[in-house]
Amino acid sequence: MCSLIGGIEGGATHSHAVILSAAGELVSVAQGPTTNYHLIGMTECRKRIADLITEAKRNAGIAPDVPLEALGLGLSGCELEESNVELQKGLERNYPLLSRRYAIGSDTEGSLAAVSNRGGVTCIAGTGSNTLLINPDGGKFQCRGWGHMLGDEGSAWHISWRAIKYCFDDLDRFEDAPHPIDAVWNLVRDHFRIKTQRDILDSFYKNFDKAFVASLCKRLADVARGGDPLAAAVFREAGRHLAKSVASVAARAAPELTSREGGLHVLCVGSVWLSWDLLRDGFVDCLRSEGRPPAGPLSLLRLTTEMGIGSALMAADRLGLRLDRDYTKNFHVFYVYNDEAN
Amino acid sequence: MCSLIGGIEGGATHSHAVILSAAGELVSVAQGPTTNYHLIGMTECRKRIADLITEAKRNAGIAPDVPLEALGLGLSGCELEESNVELQKGLERNYPLLSRRYAIGSDTEGSLAAVSNRGGVTCIAGTGSNTLLINPDGGKFQCRGWGHMLGDEGSAWHISWRAIKYCFDDLDRFEDAPHPIDAVWNLVRDHFRIKTQRDILDSFYKNFDKAFVASLCKRLADVARGGDPLAAAVFREAGRHLAKSVASVAARAAPELTSREGGLHVLCVGSVWLSWDLLRDGFVDCLRSEGRPPAGPLSLLRLTTEMGIGSALMAADRLGLRLDRDYTKNFHVFYVYNDEAN
Repeated sequence: MCSLIGGIEGGATHSHAVILSAAGELVSVAQGPTTNYHLIGMTECRKRIADLITEAKRNAGIAPDVPLEALGLGLSGCELEESNVELQKGLERNYPLLSRRYAIGSDTEGSLAAVSNRGGVTCIAGTGSNTLLINPDGGKFQCRGWGHMLGDEGSAWHISWRAIKYCFDDLDRFEDAPHPIDAVWNLVRDHFRIKTQRDILDSFYKNFDKAFVASLCKRLADVARGGDPLAAAVFREAGRHLAKSVASVAARAAPELTSREGGLHVLCVGSVWLSWDLLRDGFVDCLRSEGRPPAGPLSLLRLTTEMGIGSALMAADRLGLRLDRDYTKNFHVFYVYNDEAN
Repeated sequence: MCSLIGGIEGGATHSHAVILSAAGELVSVAQGPTTNYHLIGMTECRKRIADLITEAKRNAGIAPDVPLEALGLGLSGCELEESNVELQKGLERNYPLLSRRYAIGSDTEGSLAAVSNRGGVTCIAGTGSNTLLINPDGGKFQCRGWGHMLGDEGSAWHISWRAIKYCFDDLDRFEDAPHPIDAVWNLVRDHFRIKTQRDILDSFYKNFDKAFVASLCKRLADVARGGDPLAAAVFREAGRHLAKSVASVAARAAPELTSREGGLHVLCVGSVWLSWDLLRDGFVDCLRSEGRPPAGPLSLLRLTTEMGIGSALMAADRLGLRLDRDYTKNFHVFYVYNDEAN
């Protein structure tokens, strides 16, 4: 056994692994595909975890048969204690030399642990979306995180889907889009390499690839920044969705969290937040005008550290292991919402 | 070869086969599961078609190696000429004694052929939804029919999904439902045999069963008739969706179709139409108040004949074969919309 602690942050498309020393030094990193067991099954999930950590060990010059002291898994899909126990048991059985101990939680929990061990809010907007409040007493409140069919508004999937849906509804003359669809529909046809509406069905059903659909979002952002009003409207709508999710959990935040300097800290994780310039108007409008004012200010935080470090810190905190950290080095505040000042 | 003509009507859940004599007499019927190749693949689709017709032959005392004179396939999913040719070639190659000739079209086309060979509108609202106008010159206009992720508003899937989504959005405090969710959420939990929101994920992702989700619709109708305002609202919304689909294609109907007695004939197919009592207010409101008035009256028709007969008639008409029919015996008008009179 070594005294190193590993962490994996697993999203719906990518996973990131780190290995840290007890002093908090970054020893190694590795990257791989999604580790969401809802998408790939429990067996493949364990295999990908083992592969990632083995690669991270190799990158650090650690032999693969030397177990880590602990491994924190903050994985999209790992919301249920029962399933997490099953995941851990399988890892211990099939990969006994991977790690001596485990701590498993959702990707929202893992991310949050990078900036606080007293709770807070994480708002994930990547391929999927999920917003989670953890109060200092351990109480949790979640909004969204139900996947592409039941509720992941504000995510790259949902933004891409909404843009495509505006085109389909308009082309069918079922419902007019709020702005001309030409630029967005041209982009959709190019992205999916199709000519007609019908041609897209394969990508949504027979050969469904959620991540590929969601990858349209990045190109939509370019079209929005280029001045297309429909693409811009889709991002404003996503901003409103993210604000509603944050406001929903913020309403249940403990005073210890809301009374911090800058108000409630909201850790914003995922590639959609890279388009904050496009989300901002909808986000602020929703809080100010749509009856969703939070009780106090909100500070939106971005991680400035390697993904996966939060999961390692989560493991150290849950298992009572030493892992030095300076939280202030792990994030910066990119926006402060204050009802009076904004 | 016998002189009999077969027909299959294939929906997203069930398929119905008939065999008719040239005089139009019903010789045999058979039923089976969905034949939508988007859902089950081309090979399984052909196998199910062969199984259905073989069973129908058996029911009629016809040896399985005696080919029908023609087989009409009106199948959900068969919208594309190119794929239809592929489907037919595979049937001819792998099941050479099934039928001598084929005519393949969508389920909307097959259904419509039961009431007219001069075109009209079919509005399917079963597990999925699809509205198709065929003008007398063969010109087609479609609205919806894009499956559960891209647009089948008014379908049993969409009604069920909308009800579940109202519950999820409300429980998350993401968006308040327009009425209390208690009765609908109790029904959803009973239908899926779950306790919490999270428990439903399996039915939507890992073990996704579209037909089972859609089967919630029938029970929602009971709850709506029992007086629950949220369930009733979901059906009114579905009525609006169906009216929008009909209005979209009606705007492009040829004068020959709109100038018929009772105005444009709209053949209404699928189990959702059994809840016309719940759909009606939304349907009529949409046409009257939401800027969607059709150019003239609309007559809503219901088939009174075996499903599959339309597909057999489609085959006879396309291939120039004799198949006697009296259209007036195949339908009845259950509602007439007239902007001035209603």
